[in-house]
Amino acid sequence: PDRAAAKAAEERNGQLTKPPGALGRLEELAIWYAGWRGDARPRIDAPQVIVFAGNHGVTAQGVSAFPPEVTEQMVLNFRRGGAAINQLAKAAGAKMDVHALDLDKPTADFTQGPAMGEDEFLAALRAGWQAVDPKADLLVVGEMGIGNTTPAAAIACALFGGAAADWTGRGTGVDDAGLANKTRVVAEGVAMHGGNGDGLEILRRLGGREIAAMAGAIAAARILRIPVILDGFICSAAAACLAHSAAGSLDHAIAGHQSAESAHGAVLARLGMQPLLALGLRLGEGSGAALAINILKSAVACHSGMATFAEAGVSDA
Amino acid sequence: PDRAAAKAAEERNGQLTKPPGALGRLEELAIWYAGWRGDARPRIDAPQVIVFAGNHGVTAQGVSAFPPEVTEQMVLNFRRGGAAINQLAKAAGAKMDVHALDLDKPTADFTQGPAMGEDEFLAALRAGWQAVDPKADLLVVGEMGIGNTTPAAAIACALFGGAAADWTGRGTGVDDAGLANKTRVVAEGVAMHGGNGDGLEILRRLGGREIAAMAGAIAAARILRIPVILDGFICSAAAACLAHSAAGSLDHAIAGHQSAESAHGAVLARLGMQPLLALGLRLGEGSGAALAINILKSAVACHSGMATFAEAGVSDA
Repeated sequence: PDRAAAKAAEERNGQLTKPPGALGRLEELAIWYAGWRGDARPRIDAPQVIVFAGNHGVTAQGVSAFPPEVTEQMVLNFRRGGAAINQLAKAAGAKMDVHALDLDKPTADFTQGPAMGEDEFLAALRAGWQAVDPKADLLVVGEMGIGNTTPAAAIACALFGGAAADWTGRGTGVDDAGLANKTRVVAEGVAMHGGNGDGLEILRRLGGREIAAMAGAIAAARILRIPVILDGFICSAAAACLAHSAAGSLDHAIAGHQSAESAHGAVLARLGMQPLLALGLRLGEGSGAALAINILKSAVACHSGMATFAEAGVSDA
Repeated sequence: PDRAAAKAAEERNGQLTKPPGALGRLEELAIWYAGWRGDARPRIDAPQVIVFAGNHGVTAQGVSAFPPEVTEQMVLNFRRGGAAINQLAKAAGAKMDVHALDLDKPTADFTQGPAMGEDEFLAALRAGWQAVDPKADLLVVGEMGIGNTTPAAAIACALFGGAAADWTGRGTGVDDAGLANKTRVVAEGVAMHGGNGDGLEILRRLGGREIAAMAGAIAAARILRIPVILDGFICSAAAACLAHSAAGSLDHAIAGHQSAESAHGAVLARLGMQPLLALGLRLGEGSGAALAINILKSAVACHSGMATFAEAGVSDA
């Protein structure tokens, strides 16, 4: 970040017509955003939402309440504008892009071997990297991939330790037997692949194409100085792989929403992030992060649009 | 509310392309809104933010960190577009109206007698009632009034019981000595006026013109079937007077944001409301509620804009 811009933004914040600190977290958000954009009085005009889709070999283990063909059906729904994320992106004034990654070629079942070969993994990272619009001034990455809370749980367990059950939740809604089965699958994956290399190698072995693409996009945004709002459990697992590989790699990111998926709060705590919202969503698609775009926009609008005490002729305390 | 519309909205919600319950609280918000608007597939196109301003005789007791002339200075700032609420209303696509209520004639110091006479009180209620645009489809009421966390604390203490210290906070930022003085003032006001009549009489004796106007506007909105997002401590104290006078009078209202003003959480708990946001704001002006408008808009946009499983050709679970 640009420390001079952040410092200038902090000074401006102290002069605005409000008691000190009275805008709460909006104040720190605006200053953080100003620093990353290198502009003490920034605007948010061009948010981008990207939804990546991938299919998962591990669905053969019966880990999801929905059949895998739903991934492709939902991609069509995204393209036609019928999904929740379409409405949320529109309400946030964001453009939305959809990238389906080799849906006809699911990743390998990670209980049998690495989910992706090295070439496949790099292609997915690159797809994410290249999907980021360099002209965007805010990025949300979301995902669709039937079964993908299972790789996300396996990644979290491999990165952060603990038992598979600590990180495995109900996803789109499996029953008790489904949850027990899913926990077994996560435990088997972590037993086979955990402890092999850093976050990126964990991502290759236990992740999926859409999860790798999210990581690629988040990393690209840092280079482009585009702030990122992280979405729920799967997005946070992707981000955690970056943080594990290089300290500070999420300094340009904040958490938009704490998902109802049970382990998301624990992942955010490990990342040292406090979500802006906690409204019980557990949909993925980037929905929770998209919902938070307007909060960040509002913070920046206050910061850049308000009058100072001197401009308004208001008596300071 | 229109039970048929709410029921039809609930049925529609069950058919949308998402796992059941995956939009969390957004789902109940949309159904609640549909019921109040009498439309199973509603839109939010015309939110109104009204800021009421009033001055308080109790400032003679030294309860605020800011001088009383700031009320009028901030009204000018609202009219010129320089305050936080101007930016937040614009970011929410809301029109904003400002009503200054006899700023040159502060209410009486409630430690000496009732804050308002009956005629003054009715005039303030009526000003609030008449300020609501019947064509609005969502209402936020905010306030500006140097010293007005003191009447709000006194109202809460008189309505809900407990000690003055339980309800008295630092407002715009008084120090420890200021807080002790403010607590004394609240205790004196409650000792003089508490136990006299219902919520409206408490509002007359301990409130202020802008607080009464907020109550009038919230009551008018219920008749007009315009849903309301409540703001922070002072707005919630105004609303609590209505709830005390007539059960169910806040069924058309939700809490937008839990203020950092210390007793606001307790007021919301007494009203049985869970705030949508908790971002540490303590500014008033309607700021926390305005920040929540886009959440409700997003909820309604998902509900009314998403495709059903049948429309999208997506396999249900």
